[in-house]
Amino acid sequence: MNNKLVYEITDFSLENEELLVNETLFHNANGYLGVRSNFEEGYPEQFQSIRGSYINGFYDLAEMKQAEKLYGFVEEKQTMVNVADTQGIKLRIDQELFSMFEGEVLKSSRTLDMEKGVTKRTILWRSPKGHEVEIIVTRMASFVLLPLFTIQYDVTAMNFSGDLQFLSSHIGNVQNYFNPDDPRVAGESFRHIHVEKVEERDGVSLIRSRTSASGLQVATAVQHHLSKEGEIKHHIYGDSIEWDLKTSIELNETVSLSKYTIFADSIREENPSAHALQLMEEATAEPIETWYQKQEQFLANYWDHASVEIDGDEELSKAMYYNLYQLLQSAGKDRFSNVAAKGLSGEGYEGHYFWDTEMYIQPFFLLTQPEMAKSLIQYRYNILDSAREHARIMGHTKGALYPWRTISGKECSGYYPSGSAQYHINGDIAYSVINYYLVTKDLDFIAKYGAEMIFETARLWLDAGHFYQGQFMIHDVTGPDEYTCVVNNNYYTNALAQYHLQWAVKFYQLLQANGQTAVLEKIQLLPKEIEEFSKAAEQMYLPYDADLDINPQDDSFLSKRVWDLEKTPKDQFPLLLHYHPLYLYRHQVCKQADTVLAHFIVEDAQSLRTIENSFHYYEKITTHDSSLSTCIFSIMAAKLKEYEKAYDYFGESAKLDLFNTHKNTKDGIHTANMGGNYMAIVYGFAGLRIKESGYHFSPFLPDKWTGYQFKVHYEDSVIKVKVNSGSCQFTLVSGREKTIHVYGQAYQLEEQLSLSLEGK
Amino acid sequence: MNNKLVYEITDFSLENEELLVNETLFHNANGYLGVRSNFEEGYPEQFQSIRGSYINGFYDLAEMKQAEKLYGFVEEKQTMVNVADTQGIKLRIDQELFSMFEGEVLKSSRTLDMEKGVTKRTILWRSPKGHEVEIIVTRMASFVLLPLFTIQYDVTAMNFSGDLQFLSSHIGNVQNYFNPDDPRVAGESFRHIHVEKVEERDGVSLIRSRTSASGLQVATAVQHHLSKEGEIKHHIYGDSIEWDLKTSIELNETVSLSKYTIFADSIREENPSAHALQLMEEATAEPIETWYQKQEQFLANYWDHASVEIDGDEELSKAMYYNLYQLLQSAGKDRFSNVAAKGLSGEGYEGHYFWDTEMYIQPFFLLTQPEMAKSLIQYRYNILDSAREHARIMGHTKGALYPWRTISGKECSGYYPSGSAQYHINGDIAYSVINYYLVTKDLDFIAKYGAEMIFETARLWLDAGHFYQGQFMIHDVTGPDEYTCVVNNNYYTNALAQYHLQWAVKFYQLLQANGQTAVLEKIQLLPKEIEEFSKAAEQMYLPYDADLDINPQDDSFLSKRVWDLEKTPKDQFPLLLHYHPLYLYRHQVCKQADTVLAHFIVEDAQSLRTIENSFHYYEKITTHDSSLSTCIFSIMAAKLKEYEKAYDYFGESAKLDLFNTHKNTKDGIHTANMGGNYMAIVYGFAGLRIKESGYHFSPFLPDKWTGYQFKVHYEDSVIKVKVNSGSCQFTLVSGREKTIHVYGQAYQLEEQLSLSLEGK
Repeated sequence: MNNKLVYEITDFSLENEELLVNETLFHNANGYLGVRSNFEEGYPEQFQSIRGSYINGFYDLAEMKQAEKLYGFVEEKQTMVNVADTQGIKLRIDQELFSMFEGEVLKSSRTLDMEKGVTKRTILWRSPKGHEVEIIVTRMASFVLLPLFTIQYDVTAMNFSGDLQFLSSHIGNVQNYFNPDDPRVAGESFRHIHVEKVEERDGVSLIRSRTSASGLQVATAVQHHLSKEGEIKHHIYGDSIEWDLKTSIELNETVSLSKYTIFADSIREENPSAHALQLMEEATAEPIETWYQKQEQFLANYWDHASVEIDGDEELSKAMYYNLYQLLQSAGKDRFSNVAAKGLSGEGYEGHYFWDTEMYIQPFFLLTQPEMAKSLIQYRYNILDSAREHARIMGHTKGALYPWRTISGKECSGYYPSGSAQYHINGDIAYSVINYYLVTKDLDFIAKYGAEMIFETARLWLDAGHFYQGQFMIHDVTGPDEYTCVVNNNYYTNALAQYHLQWAVKFYQLLQANGQTAVLEKIQLLPKEIEEFSKAAEQMYLPYDADLDINPQDDSFLSKRVWDLEKTPKDQFPLLLHYHPLYLYRHQVCKQADTVLAHFIVEDAQSLRTIENSFHYYEKITTHDSSLSTCIFSIMAAKLKEYEKAYDYFGESAKLDLFNTHKNTKDGIHTANMGGNYMAIVYGFAGLRIKESGYHFSPFLPDKWTGYQFKVHYEDSVIKVKVNSGSCQFTLVSGREKTIHVYGQAYQLEEQLSLSLEGK
Repeated sequence: MNNKLVYEITDFSLENEELLVNETLFHNANGYLGVRSNFEEGYPEQFQSIRGSYINGFYDLAEMKQAEKLYGFVEEKQTMVNVADTQGIKLRIDQELFSMFEGEVLKSSRTLDMEKGVTKRTILWRSPKGHEVEIIVTRMASFVLLPLFTIQYDVTAMNFSGDLQFLSSHIGNVQNYFNPDDPRVAGESFRHIHVEKVEERDGVSLIRSRTSASGLQVATAVQHHLSKEGEIKHHIYGDSIEWDLKTSIELNETVSLSKYTIFADSIREENPSAHALQLMEEATAEPIETWYQKQEQFLANYWDHASVEIDGDEELSKAMYYNLYQLLQSAGKDRFSNVAAKGLSGEGYEGHYFWDTEMYIQPFFLLTQPEMAKSLIQYRYNILDSAREHARIMGHTKGALYPWRTISGKECSGYYPSGSAQYHINGDIAYSVINYYLVTKDLDFIAKYGAEMIFETARLWLDAGHFYQGQFMIHDVTGPDEYTCVVNNNYYTNALAQYHLQWAVKFYQLLQANGQTAVLEKIQLLPKEIEEFSKAAEQMYLPYDADLDINPQDDSFLSKRVWDLEKTPKDQFPLLLHYHPLYLYRHQVCKQADTVLAHFIVEDAQSLRTIENSFHYYEKITTHDSSLSTCIFSIMAAKLKEYEKAYDYFGESAKLDLFNTHKNTKDGIHTANMGGNYMAIVYGFAGLRIKESGYHFSPFLPDKWTGYQFKVHYEDSVIKVKVNSGSCQFTLVSGREKTIHVYGQAYQLEEQLSLSLEGK
């Protein structure tokens, strides 16, 4: 067993707050479904719990009242729905119900096994009457059969023989979590789902529900398998079914209950109920061990491509595996879904997809599983019509504007200054398409999907911006930094728009040259427009301050008062929870990397000196109140050869969820941060940049490590990068030879290339 | 009878839309109470009606949910409450109920008599069975006994004798109007008031109610007087009382019912019920005619000071009287109330007070009834503590920030970019205090109230703004123009802040010189702060563009794209109802006078040429979608000697409500616009400016008029200004002689001064 692939906690506390965090950390998901890791038997009544099961892309609509209703304000949002509760299993030994809060817990651990793709809960328990049992609960969200979620509940009698009873529930009557005091989760109780039918058919319970406003259907089927003879009954109570499984247990015997759940929804299937029943037959046709084997095979292949090995720092190495495993658990694998800010682990940000995918998560998939990156782009293509509608609502007569946050395509921002105003999302999505092309050279995909997105979003820049005194300006938009909103000429936005427009022109030429012009006719793209793209890119205004030799975040940023971070009490962070937005906007203070991020993604737009000065300028005024920030600062510190700093920023970033440093892991993991940690190693420590001229590396090794390695895809090839103390090695694992650049020097990679490490 | 003082409509339609507008136009109010002019007998069931009675400053609290909840966002607003319905009187002749919608209306008119202070409804009606009656309904909101509202209902039998019955209702079970489709009125039904007690005592019905969330009490008492013997009964139905008054009527006889209502509230009275009963005794102790006489006397005095006579344009002259009468009806007369955007005539803007008072309405009262202006300032003093709290919420460690919209003092803006961000309200209130001082020289009032407000609001500028490269800048605020929000260095804001800070220093010196320093100690104002005020005023940055020789509205205004107003279809106005704010903000387009307003109120800050260029620049891009705009453009056109334009802008402005040009008069009159029309004549046509050096006039006469005249207060004196074709005359009506300036020349006004008219 690769120890780095096991994340385990033992002797954990039963404090409510910690249980909530563990519900997130040990959740099971596979990109389609996600189930939080609650105790099967529940908590004491007064405990809070976010007991949820979710389907990626499955949503209800909720009213979002605007305090003042202005034209175009969003008044309805999509929200991820808690679809059913099939976690419940109560265990009765003779007359005693198992509970962690009664009797005596002699031993207890919780494990996430990332090699096997299961979580395990192990308890050695002594009942109030002295019965001792070992309980092992294994859960799995199958990567092979996405609608399948299993719980295997093993009980071993340690010091007795007697009756054994499982009460296993299948509950349709569920609600979403709400907390009126926290703006980051739903603020009020609302029943998003209504049970339409509860039935039992040949040992399978089936609950079919419909969402209140979106009218979508979801079906859940549950079936049990008991390892020995017993009496099985079921009772329907209102919207729920309880299965009553009675048997007996002998001293030292292990009795095992397997509970299979199948999820199906009407976004993907015409008849979810029938589909669920059919898949249940498939699932139960094989013993559960077969599914475990398939899961392990799947992961062996996954890790073969995805793993980032760190030598010399066990803790960070494990955190890295944890991050990459969560990305796999979170990423939608069809065109109806994407990667939510919290994956499928909780209800924070209501299951919405943000720019996080393109700028923080997609690089990982692109370099390790390009097919996944393609699927994520196809989701964006799937909502292109919504983006066109959104552009009209925002006043634009042409082009498409992607929503800042959404599930099914419509904008869900309640507060547009740090929502819809973030026009850079158009550039972010374009950037991800360009990157996909640079890594895969898959021009067919561009012709079929990518180009239409690139052109339509490029058109929007021409309508949103304008030429002024010979320069192209983009006014009244918000950059990534949400502590300064609705500004003129945000450097990040303009730099990205420039890159985007340049590529729109290049794709036009590429498609023309290859005769793949169907898309140009489809959207009636005129040569005149291509000239405009070209002119706007050429004349793009990028704010620059000659005195400081930095790029100001926007036109007026430098004339604001500098926020005194040192004098700000610790308990006032994150600032957004303690200061009115206007007060924040009036200061030079950044929530996260903005210009610094731009300098990473379009590094050739400025001189190294300007980039360096800017980095130091923004470093002093950035709070990193966003989880998307420190990873970027790590990458840029690495570029500037400030290795220790790069390491520190990375360390801070990598531990975010496992150490709950932002204090909101209970609401779900931070998927973008996890992708950002991958970037910090590959783009930061190894210095990878993907350009038209190919792959460029510039590796360094942190002092505290003895080495690290990972593999990346590059067109038809896979390249392994291994960095040790003193040397870096590039190995062509598969595919044809490639030209790669290391420390600015081009090399032909045929089999292996070994170079000595630069820097200290 | 002065015909200009009667506004009458005859043969009006019974279309629902027109009835709604007339409910507003003929409402009765006196600054304390307001009753919309509904038909006593009601409309057909399917008709919409805003049937309301309001008390100035009386409010409930309502939840105002924010779509996204950020720090400091307002989540509770005050809202004016519909307190009780005492308008209802049904008339039965023999067995037939009178209705405008049955039988035959032979003649009908509605009149507002501004000399007598009453409205009249006159109908000659033939019942379906052929009974003809003349009905005259006279309503009055007493200016002499503010809680008193009366309805006198006269019936004359024209062709019959028979039974006569009045069914007069007193209804406690009332709701506010709501319309989910219009952001300018409440969006949902909510019962703001709950009846606590309904009773009858010696012929008086009394209903006591309490508001749902603010816990305020209101009592209404109703009593009747019938002109001849009859049978009087009452019935209590739930939360209401119906009075049943039976008598008979002879051919040609007139029977008269007088219905008295007294309103009382717990903001002003400890025991509203007892107070209402006591006042009812007072009110009914005298015949109703006595109250009519007192009303007429009151108005004779009012008009003696307030009237603006226009000769040669009957329609505009009447419109002017109408405007000035509405200002009297609307203005609160105690420290608990002010002038709502819609006065007491409707529920638009929920009874909130805005900057409208200080910048558009107060000048009228200040020049015609300085005591009223003082009372309006005292209201602001009364909410100074709320303004201090508001400043803290907005992040400021010192000073006071007045709420953008409020009733009882707390901010009620749901959308801060065109709400709380309008920091200029601090300057507006300071400006009104300074003006009060310049007109009255009442330094005692300044020492007691005004200075504290001036200093506390001045302190805020020092915290909101900052010195940058030797200039004082104010970032991230919104000026009057709501089509460009949250900008840096709004010219209006900075110019006004400069004037404000200069006067803070002057008042400090004046108070020091007079030994009235209690306030300095109370708020611990340090000499160092006065130095800062002085320095900030001196170094105040006022945006100026040398190429165009204009003042840009803000730092980045001129670099925006110019909105093409000519190409914008007519049905797209007002723009705010058809474009997303971000789209508006991205353009050079103004909802209303902004820099142009600044050039009016602090005209000495720029050269005449800059003012002129600016006027022409902004004229092209201003939509006047706000009712506060054309009057200011009229004043400035007059200053620039563009007399025809001044006249046209004034004409457009003056007819706003009477001709329902903004299509929302049903929700209430536009009080600020009405004050603005006064300003257009006094500041515009007569060219009055009030400065430290005294009064400056610069009169002209519009071509279409033969003359106009008005009186203004000036310290202890009253001056009459009369402009005729060819000459202007200044007469000292009372008080000591004064120096006045006319066309830039100083004159000593002893008795009368006659000068020939300049211009064309």
